[in-house]
Amino acid sequence: MRIISIVGYKKSGKTSLVEKLVGALGRYGRVGTVKHVSGDGLSLGGTDTDRHIRAGAEVTVAVSRDELVKFVSGAGLRGALDELCDDGMDFAVVEGFKDSGLSKISIGLESDRLDNVVKHVDAGQDFDDELISELVRLTLAEREYHTLKSLIRRVKSNPMIRYAGAIGSFTGIVREVTGDVSTRGLEFEHYEGVAEERMEEICSELRAREGVVDVRMYHRTGWIGPGEDILYIVVAASHRDQLFSVLREAIERLKVEVPIWKKEYTDRGEFWVEGENG
Amino acid sequence: MRIISIVGYKKSGKTSLVEKLVGALGRYGRVGTVKHVSGDGLSLGGTDTDRHIRAGAEVTVAVSRDELVKFVSGAGLRGALDELCDDGMDFAVVEGFKDSGLSKISIGLESDRLDNVVKHVDAGQDFDDELISELVRLTLAEREYHTLKSLIRRVKSNPMIRYAGAIGSFTGIVREVTGDVSTRGLEFEHYEGVAEERMEEICSELRAREGVVDVRMYHRTGWIGPGEDILYIVVAASHRDQLFSVLREAIERLKVEVPIWKKEYTDRGEFWVEGENG
Repeated sequence: MRIISIVGYKKSGKTSLVEKLVGALGRYGRVGTVKHVSGDGLSLGGTDTDRHIRAGAEVTVAVSRDELVKFVSGAGLRGALDELCDDGMDFAVVEGFKDSGLSKISIGLESDRLDNVVKHVDAGQDFDDELISELVRLTLAEREYHTLKSLIRRVKSNPMIRYAGAIGSFTGIVREVTGDVSTRGLEFEHYEGVAEERMEEICSELRAREGVVDVRMYHRTGWIGPGEDILYIVVAASHRDQLFSVLREAIERLKVEVPIWKKEYTDRGEFWVEGENG
Repeated sequence: MRIISIVGYKKSGKTSLVEKLVGALGRYGRVGTVKHVSGDGLSLGGTDTDRHIRAGAEVTVAVSRDELVKFVSGAGLRGALDELCDDGMDFAVVEGFKDSGLSKISIGLESDRLDNVVKHVDAGQDFDDELISELVRLTLAEREYHTLKSLIRRVKSNPMIRYAGAIGSFTGIVREVTGDVSTRGLEFEHYEGVAEERMEEICSELRAREGVVDVRMYHRTGWIGPGEDILYIVVAASHRDQLFSVLREAIERLKVEVPIWKKEYTDRGEFWVEGENG
């Protein structure tokens, strides 16, 4: 999933721009949106659904003939993005959240006070086709984001899945305790573009193996805390016999062939670690 | 996750009973609810969030300081239950959906016109502590339901996860095409109670292996269509070296030691299959 956010003052036309961008991105894949709502604009005062929540349900889902509405207490932007990714969206257009670390299209806001502005739009500027095309290009150029579920969903959407009887996954997570060393977090850097290309080469070679239906991998970058996910590898195969060797080889090759480096922050200090020991 | 539904005529007190049951189940775990809403009782006419949906967003999430509200077009009860399970709920209390196959507490409805009624409550009967205790016991006796995400979530909630650096999963799915045979679906039966016990024995033995942090498995029963998930196995280990042999052994042992039988429905006919060839 590729994520882009649109920020700006109240009444600057954020929602209008979201509408146009959602329409345009729809030609390239499935689009989901996230909207910041101030105060308690979404309370359901007095409805039976509200009674479920007040009775202590952590999550309540109302289901009508046409739609499903889920209420979750205390989640936030990251949770919202994971929801969209889990649901198989190819794009997430986020309205608001100007303090997030997401890539931003700013309407009228001073860019020097914002992180990661990829495009500045003047307040009152016409949202014409040329602008929308540019915003679509910028969104398509964003880095992919995945959850394990979205990666498995992608494998399952391969038409060749009809020949698969087994799906295996590997998730690397940040180990907090190793012997008597305690890890506070890991920081990953990758050789942009090249890392993705190498991963795609590995996947594509492994897909050609007898009985293998699909292979996908995804590696996060930046800071990752204890217990959090670092990388996902998903393999689908006709039979389980063919699954594990390929899954295993995918990891070993990722560690050796893909230019990703990690810095480990522990209670014994900070140090860079070579791939193979990762 | 254990699922129980409450059905009854309009104004029979379904929501009041849901409130009491949610409160009582909260002592045993995390509780989510699903509510049937007739018509378009949840539309957001005129709000900016509604504009996102009308612009073509398949999924829209509104995020306020305290909650997250997700709108998904066209999902239904199964989707709602998977949402709750993915979110880590231990219980799902469902209000309505009297035509579902779920286990039911019926208020005032004639049980002979309903499937799977586990308890009949007379219309107008007092929802006293004794009744609620019985309903809690009935809910606790329901079969577990899992998604891959909920099983991984359970492994990650093990405090020993601090020692894990790798999580592996195996998902068995219904292979549609095998050679020139086409499968319409599989039907699984299990030796109730014994199957769960054997699976727990296998998991518990494998958990004792060097470097293994946790092992969990879940097998669905009943009818499963092409491409759908049959079983999940999740293993967490300190290092990836220890992961695959245990994951593999878990599957092989499940196939041989757990009393689950499958009937295969193909374009060549229907037949029962022994465990090892599954």
